[in-house]
Amino acid sequence: MAAPSSSTCENMERSILERVPPLLTDLYQFTMAYAYWRAGRHQEHSVFELFFRENPFCGCFTLFAGLNDCLLFLQSFRFTDKDVDFLRSVLPAATDPAFFQFLRSLDCSGVTLRSVPEGTVVFAREPLMEVAGPLAVVQLLETSLLCLVNYASLVCSNAARFRLASGPRKKLLEMGLRRAQGPDGGLTASRYSYIGGFDLTSNVQAGLLFGIPVAGTMAHSYVTSFTSMEEVCPQMLVGVNSNPEPVDFISLTKGWLARVCELLGVEPGKIHEGELAAFLSYAIAYPQNFLPVIDSYSVTCGLLNFCAVALALCELGYRPVGVRLDSGDLCKQSVDVRRVLRLCSKHFSTSAFDSFIIVGTNNISEQTMVEFNRKENEIDVIGVGTHLVTCTKQPSLGCVYKLVEVRGRPTMKISEDPEKSTVPGRKSVYRLLDAEGHPFLDLVCLAQESPPEAGIHIRCHPLANDGTPLSVTPVQVICLRKEVFTKGQVTHPLSCASETKANVNDSLQSLHPRHKQLEQPESYTVALSEKLYNLVTDLTRGSAKNKNSILFN
Amino acid sequence: MAAPSSSTCENMERSILERVPPLLTDLYQFTMAYAYWRAGRHQEHSVFELFFRENPFCGCFTLFAGLNDCLLFLQSFRFTDKDVDFLRSVLPAATDPAFFQFLRSLDCSGVTLRSVPEGTVVFAREPLMEVAGPLAVVQLLETSLLCLVNYASLVCSNAARFRLASGPRKKLLEMGLRRAQGPDGGLTASRYSYIGGFDLTSNVQAGLLFGIPVAGTMAHSYVTSFTSMEEVCPQMLVGVNSNPEPVDFISLTKGWLARVCELLGVEPGKIHEGELAAFLSYAIAYPQNFLPVIDSYSVTCGLLNFCAVALALCELGYRPVGVRLDSGDLCKQSVDVRRVLRLCSKHFSTSAFDSFIIVGTNNISEQTMVEFNRKENEIDVIGVGTHLVTCTKQPSLGCVYKLVEVRGRPTMKISEDPEKSTVPGRKSVYRLLDAEGHPFLDLVCLAQESPPEAGIHIRCHPLANDGTPLSVTPVQVICLRKEVFTKGQVTHPLSCASETKANVNDSLQSLHPRHKQLEQPESYTVALSEKLYNLVTDLTRGSAKNKNSILFN
Repeated sequence: MAAPSSSTCENMERSILERVPPLLTDLYQFTMAYAYWRAGRHQEHSVFELFFRENPFCGCFTLFAGLNDCLLFLQSFRFTDKDVDFLRSVLPAATDPAFFQFLRSLDCSGVTLRSVPEGTVVFAREPLMEVAGPLAVVQLLETSLLCLVNYASLVCSNAARFRLASGPRKKLLEMGLRRAQGPDGGLTASRYSYIGGFDLTSNVQAGLLFGIPVAGTMAHSYVTSFTSMEEVCPQMLVGVNSNPEPVDFISLTKGWLARVCELLGVEPGKIHEGELAAFLSYAIAYPQNFLPVIDSYSVTCGLLNFCAVALALCELGYRPVGVRLDSGDLCKQSVDVRRVLRLCSKHFSTSAFDSFIIVGTNNISEQTMVEFNRKENEIDVIGVGTHLVTCTKQPSLGCVYKLVEVRGRPTMKISEDPEKSTVPGRKSVYRLLDAEGHPFLDLVCLAQESPPEAGIHIRCHPLANDGTPLSVTPVQVICLRKEVFTKGQVTHPLSCASETKANVNDSLQSLHPRHKQLEQPESYTVALSEKLYNLVTDLTRGSAKNKNSILFN
Repeated sequence: MAAPSSSTCENMERSILERVPPLLTDLYQFTMAYAYWRAGRHQEHSVFELFFRENPFCGCFTLFAGLNDCLLFLQSFRFTDKDVDFLRSVLPAATDPAFFQFLRSLDCSGVTLRSVPEGTVVFAREPLMEVAGPLAVVQLLETSLLCLVNYASLVCSNAARFRLASGPRKKLLEMGLRRAQGPDGGLTASRYSYIGGFDLTSNVQAGLLFGIPVAGTMAHSYVTSFTSMEEVCPQMLVGVNSNPEPVDFISLTKGWLARVCELLGVEPGKIHEGELAAFLSYAIAYPQNFLPVIDSYSVTCGLLNFCAVALALCELGYRPVGVRLDSGDLCKQSVDVRRVLRLCSKHFSTSAFDSFIIVGTNNISEQTMVEFNRKENEIDVIGVGTHLVTCTKQPSLGCVYKLVEVRGRPTMKISEDPEKSTVPGRKSVYRLLDAEGHPFLDLVCLAQESPPEAGIHIRCHPLANDGTPLSVTPVQVICLRKEVFTKGQVTHPLSCASETKANVNDSLQSLHPRHKQLEQPESYTVALSEKLYNLVTDLTRGSAKNKNSILFN
């Protein structure tokens, strides 16, 4: 297990253009942009909102993430000549050439973004981002913003659930790169798993770019690549205690092996010489960082070899680190391993054996993590791959991006499926806190409404129920969104991974435990203000009565 | 729906270094590499194999993909000073500085890759790639190769299943970018969905990079952004028939609207003026490419507006394209829409109405696709997003990378779980075909064995059963893997997306239908040769008998 690297924010600003060029979007954004441009509507001031309709994983909260990347994307949003040439080849031949000049000159200098801060706990159906600006541009941004927020928020929320399932004490290691959905998926997973509650990643590039502590020791292939003691080279090791002479580390270990076998009542012949050679060779390379995987053949066999090598290291003044288990019943094995380690500690008076860490890895899911929390075990570090990074329980978060205002006029999509109807108009979102400092309701108001005040009674309409109004009195009110981008510039400092991780922690800490339960959590209320509710009702009624009504004028 | 773009291979060679820098790997690759280096074993000739243990999606085949990217990765594999500096900060302080010089000088000039061709049907537990070369280097390649193959093969296989479910006639459009796991995940999904059987993508960047035909029209936001006829600008359209004078397109359409309403017995008042304005404006921008989404308010309403605008376009000599449905019961709606279109064709003698395409999109899964194939419908183009790109049915393919030989000596991991044991030694893989040209068995032999011959009886041992031997006689024998990389160079031409797509098609075509069934397919036999089976048996027996035996000398 390697030492953490230093963390800097600047590395996070690697060119987003490489990852999210402005053509990484759906074609219909361009066909619509052209139609707007052709109709002279492209400069109309418009407002889109980004939100999701259901919390993932049957939970009742989500962590909002991806904002930093969205900001860098907005800042760098510009088409190259090559991009425009390609678009010319794709759009119909009759497309007015002046449109392509327009595209070439386009940037986000007219765009304003108000957003929930990165790493905040959020809930279904509340607007997370408000993107305002010229119609054609804000339309063109849709797919990229969704792509950047959807997976980041999903994997961050998944990581938080793994953390909640494991409890606060265990160290969590993300190790999903090989199973992630593509290389960049792997990098995003490492970044937002750390932010969501993991401590370590196996992904070296994520360490470099985001300052996440990296960890890793050895695979089974390392162990199986050794077959005999002849492969151990060098065989000598200099201790860090008083004796400056190199010691024959193989002989020293073999002596300890005999004593360990005697202690545990095992025949010395019952060990895998190849495994012992692998451990010896690794220990000679990393005398201060010895943490082998001990189940390449069997845990019993691996543990004997580990104890012998670790005792030899201790004799030379080194401090081995621990063992990794990668198969079978990790809880039971960890208990067995701990018992042997304690026995060695006592019998050989080597207190280092009392503080060895046990790392467990083996296709771990949220459910496994919950079981770890219930069953007796001695695991200190849990490594999680596939289930974390691919979010097997629900591999996508359905963020959408909906038009809510054009030229100062609220617009609304009235769907035959009420869940798919949108809430019209520019809004403000307030989080209401109770006397214990727990948020208990998020209130969505029209932007022009005056904010709710602490101690003042508010009547509102929860989104999730039949529309029955609710009366509440907040002890504290927080305005949930901030302006973070305007006139082509990021106006809010980008946060590095460790800062966002701290936000996540604070935001989750303040959430009442009843909303954080992994199974059957109590849902959190998101409500519309009286005025906004009335606007929705009026527009819906108007639309139902008169099909050719202009929705709102 | 836009015209396809020209396809070139060269665009595929965009710098893999941007996407897969050599640090995008697990830390333990470096800790192991150092231990090998320290022991002087780093140059030992070693062989790793890449394979998966189970076919995804409960199916019985997989499409192998990601090879091109692997080749580009191998070709560009080199550490920068910055990479090495970072590794120095992460590895233990006592690491010998000469190791970092060694890393700085490392490349793949000593690596040889033999692989199944990109886009080939493959099966569980057969070795797909063989990576041979100096132990430290081939170990360092593990995570990146797995990452590049795992998701590419998974999404390609998923796309192939959607194609099998839909039948050959419908056009399939991939549109999952916004729900993909990160930006690069989206790009990979577009590329391999096309290769696996899709016809089109909404992803413009995928069109640019891989020559995939791109498609798209409009979102609901376009429709809801219009509220009145005043927003239609210009309102005049010049026809492509004999009359060169601009025509007032609104008046022309309103006339048609009245006639359509009369035909269908609908009150003209029952339409959404905003939607009609949106369609008019779009038709004026794209008179030859008119394909609106018609269910922003209701399909009945959208279809009336569509027919009116389309009839007006036809009168001016244009050919509208069709409609898109994005909610509800797509099968039923498409049948209703088609009936109205046919009625208009007959009543107004506009044959263009007989060839309109109907595009259906709405959270489509493999299961929905199967139902489309069973139920009456008139859908021509199906757009698929989330379920395709995130592979909801199984979001990861478990490819692994296992050591099978060191210094000419076969190695084997003997696990307590027999499924996790590996098959030792360098191998050749042959595909045996029957008299109809269908593959019926893949035979894994030791590399030094002479290949099986057509017409000659072979005794072999299927991997999936209890070891009962099988006797087969192939009519044709194909050697499945080729050398594609050696001495730092790609030795096999990289195939572009359309070429790989053709490979996929051929490979799937030759597979017998019984193995391609989506539900309960008949499993395909992968078997070991007699010699390889005996080697496995000997090693396993030897290991069980004597725990400290050297596995194979």
